[in-house]
Amino acid sequence: MRRVGIVGLGLMGGSLARDLLALGWDVRGTDRDAATERAAREAGMGIGIDPDGLDLLVLAVPVRAAPSWLRVLASQLGGQTVVTDVGSTKRSVVAAARDTGLAPRFVGSHPMAGDDRSGWPAAREGLYRGATVWVCPAAGASPEATLAVEELWRAVGARPVGTDPAEHDRRVARSSHLPQAAATALAGVLAEAGLSPAALGPGGRDVTRLAASDPGIWTDILLDNRDEVGPALTDLATGLAGLRRALEAGDEAAVRAALETGRAWRRGGE
Amino acid sequence: MRRVGIVGLGLMGGSLARDLLALGWDVRGTDRDAATERAAREAGMGIGIDPDGLDLLVLAVPVRAAPSWLRVLASQLGGQTVVTDVGSTKRSVVAAARDTGLAPRFVGSHPMAGDDRSGWPAAREGLYRGATVWVCPAAGASPEATLAVEELWRAVGARPVGTDPAEHDRRVARSSHLPQAAATALAGVLAEAGLSPAALGPGGRDVTRLAASDPGIWTDILLDNRDEVGPALTDLATGLAGLRRALEAGDEAAVRAALETGRAWRRGGE
Repeated sequence: MRRVGIVGLGLMGGSLARDLLALGWDVRGTDRDAATERAAREAGMGIGIDPDGLDLLVLAVPVRAAPSWLRVLASQLGGQTVVTDVGSTKRSVVAAARDTGLAPRFVGSHPMAGDDRSGWPAAREGLYRGATVWVCPAAGASPEATLAVEELWRAVGARPVGTDPAEHDRRVARSSHLPQAAATALAGVLAEAGLSPAALGPGGRDVTRLAASDPGIWTDILLDNRDEVGPALTDLATGLAGLRRALEAGDEAAVRAALETGRAWRRGGE
Repeated sequence: MRRVGIVGLGLMGGSLARDLLALGWDVRGTDRDAATERAAREAGMGIGIDPDGLDLLVLAVPVRAAPSWLRVLASQLGGQTVVTDVGSTKRSVVAAARDTGLAPRFVGSHPMAGDDRSGWPAAREGLYRGATVWVCPAAGASPEATLAVEELWRAVGARPVGTDPAEHDRRVARSSHLPQAAATALAGVLAEAGLSPAALGPGGRDVTRLAASDPGIWTDILLDNRDEVGPALTDLATGLAGLRRALEAGDEAAVRAALETGRAWRRGGE
């Protein structure tokens, strides 16, 4: 039985805890919210972490809180404890691991799982099943640490894929952060126009669903990755402007080409 | 038993046909695609329409094809036949009804139903259940015509709501056409970046699902409503630019405010 500590019992940390408990692992957690800790305890989880007695520590906190946690934990962790996280950016947390001397045991993670829901009430078994998890070892991380983190994700049915922090952050700026920003900006336009979500059809509700995501978590992510997200936002605004110009010009071929490109791309993934 | 003719047996026309057949109505249809007509016949539908012998004629063709159909049918319709459509724009079809002398019997419809799928294979019973249907009588349409069209939609479980063509087209430019354009533009950015849909998480897949919509149908809709869709596209591009500026400035309050606004709006509809 592996001893795992999870800091933060929201959607990501809570779902991981539920999966590992179901597998019979020894899971303990902590959360800044007392009601969350009570609910987790009722679900069979040990509350309170001893950093000195863990095989694996998982930080499941907002991305701008993770470096502080690494600083606090650096002097308290037992010699064999491997550390990972579940944040949507990887450069800043890997840099913090290096700065706190934790690089040999730090292997960052970013599971491509979750939706617009958040918090312990949304946590559920099976969240990670079938999901890709980006795995980013710090420079100098031990192979054992990487293997332990990959084992964690495979245990809950996910598919770990190695990458490096810079490549990761560039990629998810478009694959994850841009869809969130697009849903948020679209919701802003519709709110301004006085339209309620009930005025949308099923397709429009799909497009805007992510707008309901947790603002605190996403403020952190977008700011932490802003040098990559900014150009992605510009690309999307440029695409919209191109479509507007094609409409103004009555350029049927250009309008159709944009729709054909979108359909070919979307169908290519099914 | 009401005698209904449906021109166009794609997702919208085909689903309506299936519902009405299940209710025992006398439904006949026609489609430009011979394979679709064969499939519809096998599903129990009469193929071929006699415009002179109908209580209700439904045009379920792309929005830029509807005016031609009205011109062709104007001289052939029986005296009592009410005419409606299912198109996503209403100004052009209502104008065509006026120009062809059909205004007294024309009551346009726009069901807020459907998704990225299209064609007869996607048609299914229950598509309209619970959906809002915008109902736009032509100027001078008879009360009996409006009642007949409202009755049609209530029969399949939808909720008819009256509006006028200009107000309708302004509203759906944002509630329907803008989400489609946003999904298409976002898909274009992701295609250009070399990311496949499989690289997205569940949330990103929601945001881009509409990109798979039928390009022919949507080319027609966006062009037909371009004077309203253009400003909506500008609004969204402006929102994205504002978010980018907030990120560049490290303006945490502004980033959070955008996310809070989006969440409050999206949650207000549930």
